[in-house]
Amino acid sequence: MSKRQLLLLSSSNFHGHEYLQFAKDWIVDFLKKNNADKVLFIPYASAKPNSYGEYTEKVRSAMKDWNLEVTGIHESPNPVEAVKQAKAIFIGGGNTFLLLKTLYEQHLVEEIRSRVLDHGVPYIGSSAGTNVATHSIHTTNDMPIALPPTFYALQLIPFNINPHYLDPIPDSKHQGETRAERIKEFHYLNSNPVLGLREGSALLIDDDNSATLIGHTPAVVFSRENSHAEFPVDSDLRFLFSK
Amino acid sequence: MSKRQLLLLSSSNFHGHEYLQFAKDWIVDFLKKNNADKVLFIPYASAKPNSYGEYTEKVRSAMKDWNLEVTGIHESPNPVEAVKQAKAIFIGGGNTFLLLKTLYEQHLVEEIRSRVLDHGVPYIGSSAGTNVATHSIHTTNDMPIALPPTFYALQLIPFNINPHYLDPIPDSKHQGETRAERIKEFHYLNSNPVLGLREGSALLIDDDNSATLIGHTPAVVFSRENSHAEFPVDSDLRFLFSK
Repeated sequence: MSKRQLLLLSSSNFHGHEYLQFAKDWIVDFLKKNNADKVLFIPYASAKPNSYGEYTEKVRSAMKDWNLEVTGIHESPNPVEAVKQAKAIFIGGGNTFLLLKTLYEQHLVEEIRSRVLDHGVPYIGSSAGTNVATHSIHTTNDMPIALPPTFYALQLIPFNINPHYLDPIPDSKHQGETRAERIKEFHYLNSNPVLGLREGSALLIDDDNSATLIGHTPAVVFSRENSHAEFPVDSDLRFLFSK
Repeated sequence: MSKRQLLLLSSSNFHGHEYLQFAKDWIVDFLKKNNADKVLFIPYASAKPNSYGEYTEKVRSAMKDWNLEVTGIHESPNPVEAVKQAKAIFIGGGNTFLLLKTLYEQHLVEEIRSRVLDHGVPYIGSSAGTNVATHSIHTTNDMPIALPPTFYALQLIPFNINPHYLDPIPDSKHQGETRAERIKEFHYLNSNPVLGLREGSALLIDDDNSATLIGHTPAVVFSRENSHAEFPVDSDLRFLFSK
């Protein structure tokens, strides 16, 4: 029996809102329910040199008014120990390839997995931080600026997510593949379902009891059998765990 | 002294044209100049199961009227030998990750490199086929549906290309990174210049004598120093070889 408590955001930014503000109530309620008022932030998705401090400060500043104390993992001399001690973990957006590479380099993949699945430490992911929480990063939208040892990720859930899911642009003259076509290509080689999570939405997972789509936009589920189905906000998506 | 003869297309499709037709004159002239009337087509970028035949037929059908004879590499019992015998090589579009993975699996990377650089076999690439011709696939737009052993590619040229280069969509509410922002992330970790090649354009490389932007749309060069500069059609881009 898993103890996982996950809040997986499509993005940190949502049109018309300041950084993370659209998700304030979700984050505050999620952490309160899990008795966590301290958050370990992992800024490894940031590709800009020496930017971990700046990125952590941005999160700290957003969460300060919510009475949450934020620590950057880079502030700790021992990242594995920081994860072991964490009351809650938040992995932010940026480049998914670089993020996963760094998680492996820092020997954090097994440790985070164990904390979340075996010990019930609440996990918040956003964009790249949501990608790495899933089965693999095969369905990221990011540019492959760095090569991780594998595309398999934290596997906190057994399916894939495509964050920032985007519908085809009507009347576009561009010949590049649509997001749906790319996910179809993924399914030629891989069998996991893919949850296309539009900006403004999130998946809230409470143990094995519920997996609820929350937010402002419906989501799409793509299955290998080439079907895709829209799900409105508040849908129960637990079926994704049994596929 | 290299003998390379390259025609690197941003895409096979260009709005308003049938498959490859917008590039007909370029391809015909390029192969004629290099005394090649036979083309070895490599369909490995196609992710759809059992689709190599169908994909090759599409290319064969387009080139038949141009008096070019097309052979699919999968029709040969020995792909390495097929490359050794090739009068011209064409690698088409699809998924760049899968393409590069398959080129390594089939032990073709060194062989193609040698044929093109040492023996002057003309090479045509389109989209994914253009990505793999460059220094690395770090600047592909594709979804990472398969993991190649490395992102380093055929290295027929010492810089990177971003095919299907796309300008930011005006007034977009989407929070995902723009293409230019993604290339900037690439430059945080890598130093090669990146040629952003818009659909409808190509880079034509004649030995060490010329590297000319041809086609219907200007191109953008991004350098690590964070500058980017537009170049009109007919520009000489040889400077990219010395950076």
